[in-house]
Amino acid sequence: MGTNNGIGIERIVEGTFDDVVARAETALKAEGFGILTRIDVKATLKEKIDQDFTNYVILGACNPTLAFKALTSTKDIGLLMPCNVVVYENESGEIVVSAINPQVMSQALPDADLSEVVQPATEKLTSAINNV
Amino acid sequence: MGTNNGIGIERIVEGTFDDVVARAETALKAEGFGILTRIDVKATLKEKIDQDFTNYVILGACNPTLAFKALTSTKDIGLLMPCNVVVYENESGEIVVSAINPQVMSQALPDADLSEVVQPATEKLTSAINNV
Repeated sequence: MGTNNGIGIERIVEGTFDDVVARAETALKAEGFGILTRIDVKATLKEKIDQDFTNYVILGACNPTLAFKALTSTKDIGLLMPCNVVVYENESGEIVVSAINPQVMSQALPDADLSEVVQPATEKLTSAINNV
Repeated sequence: MGTNNGIGIERIVEGTFDDVVARAETALKAEGFGILTRIDVKATLKEKIDQDFTNYVILGACNPTLAFKALTSTKDIGLLMPCNVVVYENESGEIVVSAINPQVMSQALPDADLSEVVQPATEKLTSAINNV
């Protein structure tokens, strides 16, 4: 597991792309995250601007209890919701799964009281990534 | 128009909540953003954890040309995509429309070359918010 400048909690995992996406969804659900959105980046770029891109999916994961706490603290936090988890094929053909590091939220909104949200969200996302 | 610590490009607008959401979608499309996702936060919190919350919608807006440039520069940028535009009712009953300030992306990923993305994205989102 690595973190790239703190923005992602990421890991290279074995398996086919579609298999890893399905396993990521299962691992997130086990940590209390609903998958609210799912963007197939490759298909979208092909359809909209006819560009070829690697396999890349963005899952929008939301733990409703943590989301409610965060939104009650500051409505601006919705600008950084849901928590993104991306699955993609890197230049070496490996499958990467990466979750947004919730620290990005507290760094972007230093005046908001997110103390009860960032730590549990980080723990749950780290656990989910480890279990993909 | 105001910016709250730089995270949002926001404005209070006249109209009913549903009307403002529809106008925001129209204004974003006029600037080349597709609406890839739409989360009804109020309905989600009620359904998942039976909590009452104010009217609040998160639109996931994506300009595919800018998204392709950004993703070609760094795959991590997908952790902060699409650009969120939120519409909500504030404590005074006013309707707020707010777009993520793309500077948040370059601040979170200081080593990525997003120079060709952040400025045009900021201009297009600012224009869209002004036209809601």
